[in-house]
Amino acid sequence: MEKILIINGPNLNLLGKREPGIYGNKSFEHCLTDLRERYGERVAIEYFQSNHEGAIIDKLHEAGFDGGLKGIVLNAGAYTHTSLAIADAIAAIEKPVIEVHISNIAAREEIRHRSLLTGVCKGIIAGFGTDSYRLGIEALIEK
Amino acid sequence: MEKILIINGPNLNLLGKREPGIYGNKSFEHCLTDLRERYGERVAIEYFQSNHEGAIIDKLHEAGFDGGLKGIVLNAGAYTHTSLAIADAIAAIEKPVIEVHISNIAAREEIRHRSLLTGVCKGIIAGFGTDSYRLGIEALIEK
Amino acid sequence: MEKILIINGPNLNLLGKREPGIYGNKSFEHCLTDLRERYGERVAIEYFQSNHEGAIIDKLHEAGFDGGLKGIVLNAGAYTHTSLAIADAIAAIEKPVIEVHISNIAAREEIRHRSLLTGVCKGIIAGFGTDSYRLGIEALIEK
Amino acid sequence: MEKILIINGPNLNLLGKREPGIYGNKSFEHCLTDLRERYGERVAIEYFQSNHEGAIIDKLHEAGFDGGLKGIVLNAGAYTHTSLAIADAIAAIEKPVIEVHISNIAAREEIRHRSLLTGVCKGIIAGFGTDSYRLGIEALIEK
Amino acid sequence: MEKILIINGPNLNLLGKREPGIYGNKSFEHCLTDLRERYGERVAIEYFQSNHEGAIIDKLHEAGFDGGLKGIVLNAGAYTHTSLAIADAIAAIEKPVIEVHISNIAAREEIRHRSLLTGVCKGIIAGFGTDSYRLGIEALIEK
Amino acid sequence: MEKILIINGPNLNLLGKREPGIYGNKSFEHCLTDLRERYGERVAIEYFQSNHEGAIIDKLHEAGFDGGLKGIVLNAGAYTHTSLAIADAIAAIEKPVIEVHISNIAAREEIRHRSLLTGVCKGIIAGFGTDSYRLGIEALIEK
Amino acid sequence: MEKILIINGPNLNLLGKREPGIYGNKSFEHCLTDLRERYGERVAIEYFQSNHEGAIIDKLHEAGFDGGLKGIVLNAGAYTHTSLAIADAIAAIEKPVIEVHISNIAAREEIRHRSLLTGVCKGIIAGFGTDSYRLGIEALIEK
Amino acid sequence: MEKILIINGPNLNLLGKREPGIYGNKSFEHCLTDLRERYGERVAIEYFQSNHEGAIIDKLHEAGFDGGLKGIVLNAGAYTHTSLAIADAIAAIEKPVIEVHISNIAAREEIRHRSLLTGVCKGIIAGFGTDSYRLGIEALIEK
Amino acid sequence: MEKILIINGPNLNLLGKREPGIYGNKSFEHCLTDLRERYGERVAIEYFQSNHEGAIIDKLHEAGFDGGLKGIVLNAGAYTHTSLAIADAIAAIEKPVIEVHISNIAAREEIRHRSLLTGVCKGIIAGFGTDSYRLGIEALIEK
Amino acid sequence: MEKILIINGPNLNLLGKREPGIYGNKSFEHCLTDLRERYGERVAIEYFQSNHEGAIIDKLHEAGFDGGLKGIVLNAGAYTHTSLAIADAIAAIEKPVIEVHISNIAAREEIRHRSLLTGVCKGIIAGFGTDSYRLGIEALIEK
Amino acid sequence: MEKILIINGPNLNLLGKREPGIYGNKSFEHCLTDLRERYGERVAIEYFQSNHEGAIIDKLHEAGFDGGLKGIVLNAGAYTHTSLAIADAIAAIEKPVIEVHISNIAAREEIRHRSLLTGVCKGIIAGFGTDSYRLGIEALIEK
Amino acid sequence: MEKILIINGPNLNLLGKREPGIYGNKSFEHCLTDLRERYGERVAIEYFQSNHEGAIIDKLHEAGFDGGLKGIVLNAGAYTHTSLAIADAIAAIEKPVIEVHISNIAAREEIRHRSLLTGVCKGIIAGFGTDSYRLGIEALIEK
Repeated sequence: MEKILIINGPNLNLLGKREPGIYGNKSFEHCLTDLRERYGERVAIEYFQSNHEGAIIDKLHEAGFDGGLKGIVLNAGAYTHTSLAIADAIAAIEKPVIEVHISNIAAREEIRHRSLLTGVCKGIIAGFGTDSYRLGIEALIEK
Repeated sequence: MEKILIINGPNLNLLGKREPGIYGNKSFEHCLTDLRERYGERVAIEYFQSNHEGAIIDKLHEAGFDGGLKGIVLNAGAYTHTSLAIADAIAAIEKPVIEVHISNIAAREEIRHRSLLTGVCKGIIAGFGTDSYRLGIEALIEK
Repeated sequence: MEKILIINGPNLNLLGKREPGIYGNKSFEHCLTDLRERYGERVAIEYFQSNHEGAIIDKLHEAGFDGGLKGIVLNAGAYTHTSLAIADAIAAIEKPVIEVHISNIAAREEIRHRSLLTGVCKGIIAGFGTDSYRLGIEALIEK
Repeated sequence: MEKILIINGPNLNLLGKREPGIYGNKSFEHCLTDLRERYGERVAIEYFQSNHEGAIIDKLHEAGFDGGLKGIVLNAGAYTHTSLAIADAIAAIEKPVIEVHISNIAAREEIRHRSLLTGVCKGIIAGFGTDSYRLGIEALIEK
Repeated sequence: MEKILIINGPNLNLLGKREPGIYGNKSFEHCLTDLRERYGERVAIEYFQSNHEGAIIDKLHEAGFDGGLKGIVLNAGAYTHTSLAIADAIAAIEKPVIEVHISNIAAREEIRHRSLLTGVCKGIIAGFGTDSYRLGIEALIEK
Repeated sequence: MEKILIINGPNLNLLGKREPGIYGNKSFEHCLTDLRERYGERVAIEYFQSNHEGAIIDKLHEAGFDGGLKGIVLNAGAYTHTSLAIADAIAAIEKPVIEVHISNIAAREEIRHRSLLTGVCKGIIAGFGTDSYRLGIEALIEK
Repeated sequence: MEKILIINGPNLNLLGKREPGIYGNKSFEHCLTDLRERYGERVAIEYFQSNHEGAIIDKLHEAGFDGGLKGIVLNAGAYTHTSLAIADAIAAIEKPVIEVHISNIAAREEIRHRSLLTGVCKGIIAGFGTDSYRLGIEALIEK
Repeated sequence: MEKILIINGPNLNLLGKREPGIYGNKSFEHCLTDLRERYGERVAIEYFQSNHEGAIIDKLHEAGFDGGLKGIVLNAGAYTHTSLAIADAIAAIEKPVIEVHISNIAAREEIRHRSLLTGVCKGIIAGFGTDSYRLGIEALIEK
Repeated sequence: MEKILIINGPNLNLLGKREPGIYGNKSFEHCLTDLRERYGERVAIEYFQSNHEGAIIDKLHEAGFDGGLKGIVLNAGAYTHTSLAIADAIAAIEKPVIEVHISNIAAREEIRHRSLLTGVCKGIIAGFGTDSYRLGIEALIEK
Repeated sequence: MEKILIINGPNLNLLGKREPGIYGNKSFEHCLTDLRERYGERVAIEYFQSNHEGAIIDKLHEAGFDGGLKGIVLNAGAYTHTSLAIADAIAAIEKPVIEVHISNIAAREEIRHRSLLTGVCKGIIAGFGTDSYRLGIEALIEK
Repeated sequence: MEKILIINGPNLNLLGKREPGIYGNKSFEHCLTDLRERYGERVAIEYFQSNHEGAIIDKLHEAGFDGGLKGIVLNAGAYTHTSLAIADAIAAIEKPVIEVHISNIAAREEIRHRSLLTGVCKGIIAGFGTDSYRLGIEALIEK
Repeated sequence: MEKILIINGPNLNLLGKREPGIYGNKSFEHCLTDLRERYGERVAIEYFQSNHEGAIIDKLHEAGFDGGLKGIVLNAGAYTHTSLAIADAIAAIEKPVIEVHISNIAAREEIRHRSLLTGVCKGIIAGFGTDSYRLGIEALIEK
């Protein structure tokens, strides 16, 4: 069975604890369980979270040349706006990467309006709460 | 049955004819047929296209208070980047609007990086070709 | 009897329905009735609303050379900030135009701080709710 | 009888002497006499002028908590564009302040396009010559 | 006989009436008559004017795939500086478009220095009064 | 006994009255009493407030060469962001100046993010309510 | 006994070795010993240093929900100016964070004038050499 | 017979050799021969090329007061974007100058979008290959 | 005998005490004595210094209409860069004003590069130490 | 006898012919004759004019190490605003250079507000017509 | 024998795999072997690669005080443009650091034009493919 | 034997005389002698210096099509930052050009941070004193 990898960046391990007005009050593990139930027969969903920019790059390198992987759904959190190195990693690998965000970043502070990643990703999905991840998987499966 | 309205803005009537390297070579009618086949049992998909900013605003007003409508999938084309009036219309109506784009606007010219609409839309989906419309419908149905 | 023309731009037809926190909850027709009662013996107040930039320009051209008109009170809505073509129309006609706004645009988002119209209007009145229209009429009558 | 206070900022004491092409050739005292004649039965109009930013702030503090005052009509002259301290004073007091300008500041040099005060004032009236003061009084009386 | 289409944008219907210091005091119909006399044996010159951005786009679409048309001479007026949608229409069609301006836009206000259209037009001709249209036709005929 | 001078700039005389959500509801005199109680045995605390930029400069000059003074704790209010003249006064005198702010200026509007004074002060303390003054005194005493 | 955590960011492990003209010539361990002597009876002072952005975020997460902790004194070094991810971590946790800097960052290069952290910290203390840490502890204890 | 002077700026002596994708593969001498054949009975076409900014200024001064000259067609090459001194020379002389460019400068790199010369020239013609020179001559002859 | 007025702005009363590396170590009174000795037979030199922006404006108003005055030599210190109100005062009066600076402001910090005053003064003289005042007097006498 | 060198940059050879509203209608030779009459007993005044940036640099190099020269009075014309190479030449030589301008450059177009030269010159004198040259000589002689 | 350390930053471990059009198709190990063959008798070449900003800082600290090290050749990849912390580490250590890049960063996207590191490095070498590393070693050996 | 041409731009003829703190105190002739001794058996090193932008362009044209030339080592001095015309000349010729600088331009003033040339050169080498020229030759020989 083909795999899809979800990568969550910094502070997303606090989901459910952190600013619930913006990010909701369910931990990401709940979301993951839902996704695996829904898509489990079609793809295996792997998950990786790190607060370290370098660890995210390492993971992208490892996954990016993994023959059995269909693609990557990436929520790079704040690194979306500051990490050219993650952008370079996405451009360097062979697998498509879908950029997702829980909140509608364009409706927040100025500094969150510019994504360094969008230009090298397959596409962007933002603003649908944790449903953004499901739409990201939909986008990869359909391809 | 609930309805979903797709609104296409300027020049999208040329889809299939216009810059196929960026926008593909199928007309939007093909896409619409596919969507109606796939989602026809769950929602009725209505369609509106105009090159006139004012006509898009008029349509948003009309649809935005229509009780039977689940939401709007909007590809405002170039007006995405220049029309504060459409943004105001979206903010003024009751129905959720999903912003979609065929191309990955962040990977194109500078002037297409800023969307005036994203901040008032429910969310944004961009870069998946005409599949962006399908993901927009998915996002509305799931809500 | 001399005439005054009030022109309302995009989304102002939703007044009373739209974001009442900013724009109040009375439709513009109420306001118009009040103004006609108050000033009816001195001037005839005509009214035009459109969501179409081009239609507003057409109206300005038509009114701008109408001998019986004292002047125009214009709330161009979002076109205030994006329409150089409306600015050119104002500069091209013979009648004075008073720019009015219901809200205090300088206290809102950055994009609403710059008006393309003020420089070619006779003057600007903003922030007094629908009373801005009355003050606009006062300014024209006094001249 | 309720009072209204007019405050004039720097160089407005030279009205009538200074750049008549922009500001007209009547001193402000003429204007004041007209206003008192017209509105004298409804409000007492007090007047204060200073070239000192600090003195204007002192006056705003004094008037801003004066129970008998209906509001303030303020033409802060050049301080409009440079004095955050006057803006803070306006925000700090209880009485409404109407920003007025003789000339249409948006039609003059770039540096006069941005007002630091508008965001904390009740509203702005600009471009009607000394008639701007009358409209400011109208705006306060009507409230 | 081959055709050339001249499109005039907003406020150009006022030519001869509007700011004669900048635009001259002859209506565009005079200019059109001169052009037809001069070039009538070589090309048929069609003419379209609108103050509506959307109508200009519609016309570009219609003309842009018209086999008998040699090309389009476009003076988009103020839309030159604000309409990305017209730029997209020009890029989307097959016929060459020549951008013309009556005045030397670079010698006017800052906001008129940037054209959104030039990059997608065949070339630009500006500053020669209504003779700019003739040079535009020359440029198309020679090709 | 050595002295410390606290200087408060414009609008800080309204402390307790002005925007209590940002500045608290105690007048500065309460704060001063607390500080004198706490530090009275170690330093004499003098106090000066003015809404006049020039008066603050005069005071800085007078205090800045006063042999018995340990240093100055300065909350210049809005002049923090607009007064290069106060910055020059601080650079010109011999005594160290500590910049303090009640609110966290970096968390407020853009215009309050840049301080003209920090570069010439000994250091900055901001965001601790009136406790910022106490920390300023601590910083001077320790030196 | 309650605890306070001091976090030092990149290159602060070189204190005493690195650019002594700016940062002084004592290692941070000296400073830590002084602080523990002075405040040891009132709070236990814990210490963490890392050159890794991710490790600082991990530590903030761990400490940020630690019931026995009074607050965090953070000198994020150069990450102050580039790490939106650390800012997000501060906003996400429950404990107050005090931003401190040894040097007066506003008196150094342009790039050090903007802190991404100040807006989400309780307050900022900068420019007092290692005494900034002591003032940070004072600010936390007093609360 | 009246004369027209064509001035070519830096690197245009390499025409035909230099980046043929942008500038074509014919040397300017071919173009000049064509122009002289076509217009030889009506005007004498003189030609000057230099890579030296100062030499172009000297030539403009010399020609600019030459009674027999109808005007100048100037392609200043890269000096278009950097030479205020050439702009001053054009403003200082009596003869009209037409700015021409082979390529459509607005469709190239950012730095080529701003011309320092357009504001002082009679008009601009750009994007028609070497045909731009012919149109420049047309513009002068017609006057 | 005709008079010349020298006005010194904020902090110039500290001349000789303040940053001698930039401003020299002689008080302005020495300079004044020298000037009066040198020019005493030709003009009477009056002197005014204030740290108050408003007081400088008051003085400009008073002197600006004084028939016996030849002109004003003004060193507005830091107000040069922040006071639009002083600029307006200069524009409003009848007497010529010469802007002088002791230091070469263009060789100092960015914020001192822009003068709000130069545009309304007769001319500027900067960088000659206190000799700038002498040159200012020379410029006025010669006229 | 000591020498002073006056260098005039591009287009200043047209003085008297060029834009007399800005530059006056006397050729520079008249001015030179006056200066030599007035200062001839104290210094020999040499003169050099070129429209070539490189020639001005060559001259600065030659004069800059000439033992008998007191200094240079330089009006670099438009190169003032574009030539970093002339600025480097001034910084490289031993003799003081005084920057002069006939017009008040700060009162003209934006592009003439920034001088690349002022920072490396001894001082600047601008706005006094050709009297600026005399003041430049005064400044050198006095030193 | 003296040592030289080569540090490669993020994504450079993919050399040979990643975007071969920009970075070539040889892995860095090939390059390293060549360099060791060529310079092996003169210096020992050590190598370190990491995708972690913090790990690069740790390595710089460790190497930067290593007595036997001649210097460091650093290709910080994307961190070149975003890491002020690496810049601080370079400034903090004793050994010279040479910045190298495989591609000509100035000929790529805007965001790669500014290096935060160049200002604190000994020098920069960019655009020579992997030969940039050899030139970096040359630069260190020669010193 | 193959040739290499070194071109030095403005003010580099003063090397050894000019600001020795930045540029060293040896004339370029010393450097040239060293280079010829070292590389004389492999390439003939030609040398050209000019302060004239146009002369540098002429030389680039002449050398750029010279069959026997291996490449050009160019230090364009201040023209690096202002001459688009030299950049165009480099792009127009066939031979590779290596940009070199004696100082580390990124560590100097802002205006020296942007090179107009780097994008069209083969590569850049800066900051190694006159050793930068040797590294440039190394880079060409190796190719």
